[in-house]
Amino acid sequence: MMGCPPEDAILAADVLIRSDLRGIDSHGVARLVGYVRLWEKKRINARPNIRIVHETPTTATVDGDAGLGLVVAPFAMKVAIEKAKIYGSGWVSVKNSNHFGIAGYHALLATEQDMIGVSMTNASPLVAPTYANERMLGTNPMCYAFPAGKYPPVVVDMATSAAANGKLEIAQRANKPIPEGWAQDKDGQPSTNPEQLKAGGSLLPLGGDKDHGSHKGFGLSATVDILSAVLSGANYGPWVPPFVAFLEPAANPVGEGLGHFLGAMRIDGFRPADDFKQHLDNWIETFRGAKPVDPAQRVIIPGEPETAFEKERALNGIPLIDAVVNDLNQLAEKFNLEKL
Amino acid sequence: MMGCPPEDAILAADVLIRSDLRGIDSHGVARLVGYVRLWEKKRINARPNIRIVHETPTTATVDGDAGLGLVVAPFAMKVAIEKAKIYGSGWVSVKNSNHFGIAGYHALLATEQDMIGVSMTNASPLVAPTYANERMLGTNPMCYAFPAGKYPPVVVDMATSAAANGKLEIAQRANKPIPEGWAQDKDGQPSTNPEQLKAGGSLLPLGGDKDHGSHKGFGLSATVDILSAVLSGANYGPWVPPFVAFLEPAANPVGEGLGHFLGAMRIDGFRPADDFKQHLDNWIETFRGAKPVDPAQRVIIPGEPETAFEKERALNGIPLIDAVVNDLNQLAEKFNLEKL
Repeated sequence: MMGCPPEDAILAADVLIRSDLRGIDSHGVARLVGYVRLWEKKRINARPNIRIVHETPTTATVDGDAGLGLVVAPFAMKVAIEKAKIYGSGWVSVKNSNHFGIAGYHALLATEQDMIGVSMTNASPLVAPTYANERMLGTNPMCYAFPAGKYPPVVVDMATSAAANGKLEIAQRANKPIPEGWAQDKDGQPSTNPEQLKAGGSLLPLGGDKDHGSHKGFGLSATVDILSAVLSGANYGPWVPPFVAFLEPAANPVGEGLGHFLGAMRIDGFRPADDFKQHLDNWIETFRGAKPVDPAQRVIIPGEPETAFEKERALNGIPLIDAVVNDLNQLAEKFNLEKL
Repeated sequence: MMGCPPEDAILAADVLIRSDLRGIDSHGVARLVGYVRLWEKKRINARPNIRIVHETPTTATVDGDAGLGLVVAPFAMKVAIEKAKIYGSGWVSVKNSNHFGIAGYHALLATEQDMIGVSMTNASPLVAPTYANERMLGTNPMCYAFPAGKYPPVVVDMATSAAANGKLEIAQRANKPIPEGWAQDKDGQPSTNPEQLKAGGSLLPLGGDKDHGSHKGFGLSATVDILSAVLSGANYGPWVPPFVAFLEPAANPVGEGLGHFLGAMRIDGFRPADDFKQHLDNWIETFRGAKPVDPAQRVIIPGEPETAFEKERALNGIPLIDAVVNDLNQLAEKFNLEKL
């Protein structure tokens, strides 16, 4: 066993399983082997002393003590929510953490309290800024979650790169090309070969190239990096300790671990929650009802596919591909547990 | 004269001129004629009673009383800053406002106080959500501004569409095609003709199409719309009262005017401001020094081009194209003022 306290192990498992339930297979139990690998390298502390190291009534910096991000981020979000209960909003920047799973999990903790949830994290340096031929940024996801009335929350949960690394991995396994604008090769030239990333190439920011607004994707990614790490004292940019197996941590860190940014704002700090929800329901219906280009494909509300997966998989279970089952069985063997 | 109190007129002029100084000509004095047009249509109240209508220690909703957004947004940002001074952060959603100029102006009010500034607004419905053939969203800009030490602030100030409408207008004037991924025609088909927007076509969200992440641009735009309008009680989505001359306001508004969202967080609510600034300087130097694809074009830090313009134009003046000079002279004549 890794030695996590049981409540931490349960929480971490909940984050991973919720990811699988929501159809984000890349971030679910498939990642367990990665977390164990980091623990074996002594980069994850199974019994962290997660704590607030600096605060005002509505802001705080949390030191994750090298714990699992899956445990550190919910701690930080709870700090934000408690502050918001009293003062209307709460904002927490986190240092010394690790990969926190899906951003949506943490932001949704706020919507359950009739709050708007915000969650971001920096990540393994895989993305080249516009004009650069160097991996300097993570896929740095940004998530905003809003509680609706009769509909599930609107959840905008997105990598700020053109595509998440998970999508490249799918193309690698299927031996298929990727769309132009997702990646470049080691010479900085556009490439549709998903293997280029591991061969010294880079992912590209949302937008793909300057003409298509990649400077905006870079700007969003920069925002996530600064809020998560420059603000907290974590590593930023090329110094972020990588989660992917094919990269090693930088020798000269500029901060501690990787960083997150979590926030919560009470809806009724702005208007009665019921008014907001009624209008958000109208917003959802309006956009869902937009005239489609192709009658067979209507507009998708952010978060809608994940909710549909969650309903279906809660009923029918989570399908696991063989590679993941094998990984989990190897872990079971390592820790002397029953196999799947 | 429109009848603005002198301090409002001076503030509005400052926002427009700062835009020209920063090289964002589309949002500067060239827009004056548009604001006057809205005033003539009685859509802008020259003597508004801008006020807080709902608040907690760190959140507020401001009613702009149909005033110039150029005046309403700085009011709201000052509310956010005052709250942040006391409680660490402040967040203000605004209804019943109008076009607020460049988002960066408002966010930069926070950086002057060693705070992180956030500013967003919804805007004229010109953008089709992913899969839709209908103009439902504005170019909905999002801005984050961070104070640095020896360098100017990092300012991420971006439309959440693939391109801002101003860029289409430049292509229209030059009679040049636009890159694929910026717009679609009235049938929802990709188009490189900048005239298609006025002919029933739409702008596209950042990403351009689904393969290239336009659902992310849509999600960001939705975030801006919800924070600015569903949260405040302003109009959202297709109901946003348009600034562009070729569209009329919706007959059945769901809220009041258009909406903004402004925020401020004290840097020292997270760590000492000097530590943050030193690391942000290092961040800037690191990214500026990234290995370029083309040695002639290094990485551009968000906000850097605007700062360079501001230095140069403060010295040498703001160049105005003839069309803008003519517009301004017509306004001068209308209001019996000295011509340029």
